[in-house]
This record gives sequence, structure tokens and C-alpha cells, in this order.
Amino acid sequence: MHFAERLIEKVRAVGNPVLVGIDPRLESLPESLRKGREATRKVAAEIFREFGRGVIDVVADKVAAVKFQAAFYEQFGPEGMEALRDSLEYAQNRGLITIFDGKRNDIGSTAEAYARAYLGKVDVGGGWERIWRADAITVNPYLGSDGINPFVQVARAEENGIFALVRTSNASAGEFQDLIADGKSIDRHVAARLAEWSSADRGPSGYGLLGAVVGATYPEQLAEFRDALPGVWFLVPGYGAQGGSAEDVAGAFDEDGLGAIVNNSRGVTLAFNRADLRGRFGEDWQRAIDAALDEMIADLAANTRAGRLRPGV
Amino acid sequence: MHFAERLIEKVRAVGNPVLVGIDPRLESLPESLRKGREATRKVAAEIFREFGRGVIDVVADKVAAVKFQAAFYEQFGPEGMEALRDSLEYAQNRGLITIFDGKRNDIGSTAEAYARAYLGKVDVGGGWERIWRADAITVNPYLGSDGINPFVQVARAEENGIFALVRTSNASAGEFQDLIADGKSIDRHVAARLAEWSSADRGPSGYGLLGAVVGATYPEQLAEFRDALPGVWFLVPGYGAQGGSAEDVAGAFDEDGLGAIVNNSRGVTLAFNRADLRGRFGEDWQRAIDAALDEMIADLAANTRAGRLRPGV
Repeated sequence: MHFAERLIEKVRAVGNPVLVGIDPRLESLPESLRKGREATRKVAAEIFREFGRGVIDVVADKVAAVKFQAAFYEQFGPEGMEALRDSLEYAQNRGLITIFDGKRNDIGSTAEAYARAYLGKVDVGGGWERIWRADAITVNPYLGSDGINPFVQVARAEENGIFALVRTSNASAGEFQDLIADGKSIDRHVAARLAEWSSADRGPSGYGLLGAVVGATYPEQLAEFRDALPGVWFLVPGYGAQGGSAEDVAGAFDEDGLGAIVNNSRGVTLAFNRADLRGRFGEDWQRAIDAALDEMIADLAANTRAGRLRPGV
Repeated sequence: MHFAERLIEKVRAVGNPVLVGIDPRLESLPESLRKGREATRKVAAEIFREFGRGVIDVVADKVAAVKFQAAFYEQFGPEGMEALRDSLEYAQNRGLITIFDGKRNDIGSTAEAYARAYLGKVDVGGGWERIWRADAITVNPYLGSDGINPFVQVARAEENGIFALVRTSNASAGEFQDLIADGKSIDRHVAARLAEWSSADRGPSGYGLLGAVVGATYPEQLAEFRDALPGVWFLVPGYGAQGGSAEDVAGAFDEDGLGAIVNNSRGVTLAFNRADLRGRFGEDWQRAIDAALDEMIADLAANTRAGRLRPGV
């Protein structure tokens, strides 16, 4: 099934647009996973694997998708990457849509290599293997269409998806993204090209396989991008720990409450470090994650059109 | 020693500015490494490891640096990444400056995680380990200074380097990089910021730890960038298989023949597939690589200021 249709089916089934971001920082993980264990990258990778499984077990029936931040796994070398591979597979097996957040970018056959690695299959010398089980990948558009087309081609063949950076959520995003050329900011130029590149691959819903990362730190911009990019699904970072509220992300949704998934990483997966949740659940870090996830789902349902996803509630 | 000084010392010692790019594509590697072996990613990774060692053995005493294209290793999963780790280590042990070409980009603590992974050491839970032995990394600047500063900080502490994309060598580079804002193209805006970001970290030579990737497909631009960015070392892709000649890259060098390393990947490391070199060396793929490398060194010496690196010749 077309990536956008799979995503919509899943979002409708769970009734919310939450994307759980798994960005494991060793020093912040539950004490119970860390104590008394050796300080080696092999053990660190095993802790990441256990933490990922624990998070996925909590969220698998409640959200549509999880996003893995590659940097934290790459930090621990090939062993860390093995933990990432296992976590992607575990999440897919639990029915979650998986996003590899690696912001990859290159041209031609190199971009194709990334695309095959994460979204497709790789020729290992006569046989084809699926390596990293991602349903979608984040990419950086600075190199233009030569850097995007190879991902689109593989995603099309595999019925997987792509989210290209358009507007990031960081303070210095504007240094280049706000520059005005021909009366239009660079991020809007990127958005316009994205609309063009994605137009050939729309599913029956009207949404395409090529989505956009649009940060939640500028709420009015988010609504403008929503209007300018019908058919382009948004991945919205910036909610929670990065300072964004439900009101800030509200503009990302279409009339049906579709069109966006809203990421929360630390705010959900490290919720066991919150004093109030620690008071309620003690060392039971999974219950703390569950409670924080419920809060976010309720917040988006009450304060955005994502509430329309659950007509019965 | 400061990264730029190390690079200069090495470039002067070998007397040429060639950067050998190792971008292994399984189907193009020497028949002798592939024949009769199982088609699994483990075996493919082992073939990459053997090929990398073979290339490094040929080039180690002749060039200053090698660059590994991450995508091709990532294709083969954690096993491929292990081959990359081993190859980086092998190259460093042979005295080469190693560049991890991953075009990584993210913000804040995520960018820091990439920087520590590739350029520094990682806290594995009480002890610090060096994971991927790169002396420099390529990064993408679309996110602005939030995405560059964490790399600069780690590079400074570790005396390592960074090359940020400014002008890429692909046909569609101009889609965003040529847009004009305030009378200046976006790649020039990126260059201006780069000069700013790099100004605090210059070595005694005047060159800094933050370099720039500037493609060789537009020779006059390359010379303009050279003038605009004194103190910024260039990594120049596009020579050889991508169509650039010595004349095309000539503008990248300063008066002393310093200031740039010129990459060649397929043109050197897959030279054994050239009919003429196959005629001369048969199955001896290492001698073909050696001959192609000599050709490139001679071409740059004859047709660019890099010739000034070898005053005795």
C-alpha cells in the first residue's frame, strides 16, 4: 500500500498524530537498565536495545509511528548500529511505521545507496537483502533534485516514504532558510520544489510519499506551509522539550485532522525523569512513559484538529 | 597539532593535493576479491575491508588523505559499518588523514553526538572510547550555526577538522545554491557564514579547522570562492569521473599550491576497470590504481599551482 495511505490508516486506527522519537542518551536512560553493568560500547548498545524494546512495548498499540535518531546509535559504533537495526525490526514487527532520522543527503548513486540501505533492499552479490527496516527516512534538500530523486525512486518501488527538511525548529534555522530570493524565503523555495517533486506520487488520499519536516517553533509559518503544500505530509519536530505547545503545532493539520505527525522524543521517552511521574510510578519507567504519552495525545486532541481523528471520544 | 597544520605538513610531505575517495560499489570491485564467495552482507563487508586495505596499501605513502563515502558502507548494515571502522583505523595507522564523508547534519546535542562519534570520544558509561577514527567529517550547513558549532567545538578539542558543503558538484546544485538573496547567491551566503564560523580557529598557517566542499564543475566560481575565503581549506569533488579536469580545479589553490585537496574516487580506486590499464596490468588491480594515481598527481602538478608543492621536481 502507498506510504501515505498506510500512514493515514495507522493514524486513523490509533486516533492520534503522535510520533514517538527514540533518541537514547545513555546517561539519561533508566537507572535500572544501567546499574552494575560494564562501561563498554557493547553494553551501551545492549542497553539501547533494551530501552528501545521497552519504549516500543509501551507505545506500539497507541501511536502510528516511531522515529529513531541515528546519531545516538552511531555514537556507539557498529554495535550501536546493530541495536538500531534490531530496534527498527522490533518496531516494524509490532506494527509501527518506522522513521530513520538520519537527515541523509548526497547525489546520484550515493543517494541511491542510502535509499536502498534504509528504504529498500541491497544487492549483496547476487541476492537481495533488506538491511535497515525503515518505512521512511529524513533527508536534507541542500543539493537539489539530484539528492532527492534517488530516494523518491526507491521509496516508490518499495511503497515507503521520505521527509525532506523544509523548515527546521532550531534558533539559527533562519540564517539560510529566511533569506529572501525573488520575494520568497529559501524555505519556501524548498517547499515549492518539494510540491513539484512529490506531485507524481500521490496516493488516493491526495497525500504523497514525499513529506516535509516543518518545525513547530513558528506556528504561523506552519499554517502557511500547510496551505501552500496540500498533499505533502508534515513531520513536525519541536513539541514538548523543544518548547512547542499544541497551539504551536495546530496549523499543521488539515480539515480532517490529518496531514501531520508530531514528534516528541525526550518529553515521552525520558518522562521517568520528571519529578511528578517519578512520584507516581517510582522506578517503573514504562508507566511514566505511558502516562506522558497519554498527556500528549489528550493535549493534541483537545487543542488541535487532531481531535477529529477520534469522533467517538 | 591543529588540523590545518597537520594537513599542510602531510600535503607538503607527499608533494601533491590528491585526496583518494574510497566509495566501494560491490559490483565494481576486483573480480579476484569477489569470485567464489557467498552472497551475504557479511561477506560483502569483508570484501570492502580487503579492498580498503588494498587501496590504502597502494596510496599510503603517496597522498595525504583518504575519504570514505559512508553510504556504501551503511548499505551493508552494521557489518558494513564495521568494515568502515576497520578501514578508518587501518588508514590512520598508515599515517593517512581520514575523512568520513557522511554529510551529517542536525542540531544541538544530536550534532554533538555525531561530532563525538566521528571526530572525538564517546562516554560509554563511565569510560571514554574513540569509536570511528576520522580526522575530519563532511557536514551539511542547511540548519545554520546550531548545526555547525557542535562540530567545531569537538573538532577544536580533538584537533580534528570539518568540511561543510558550500557548492556541490552536481547538475541540480543551483536549484537552491544559485538563488540570489540581497544580491548574493545562497552558496555565497553559506561561504560568508563559514568564514565567520571558522575565524576563531585558525592555525599558524592562517588556515582553520573548518573547511568547505566546493565542487569543480564551475571553475570560475572555484577561483572566486578561493579569493573570498582565505583561511578556509577546500575539499574539491568533481575531478575525474565526474567530469572535472586539472584546469577546472586550478582555481582552488593559493599562491603556494596549498588550500585545497582534490578528490578522485572511481577514477583512482576503480582504475583496474579501465581497458588500457587492464591491458598493462591484467588482474593486478593494485598496480592499476597506482598508475592512475600517478597520472592524477602528474596532471595536477603540471596544470595547477599544486606543482609548487614539489619545487625539486
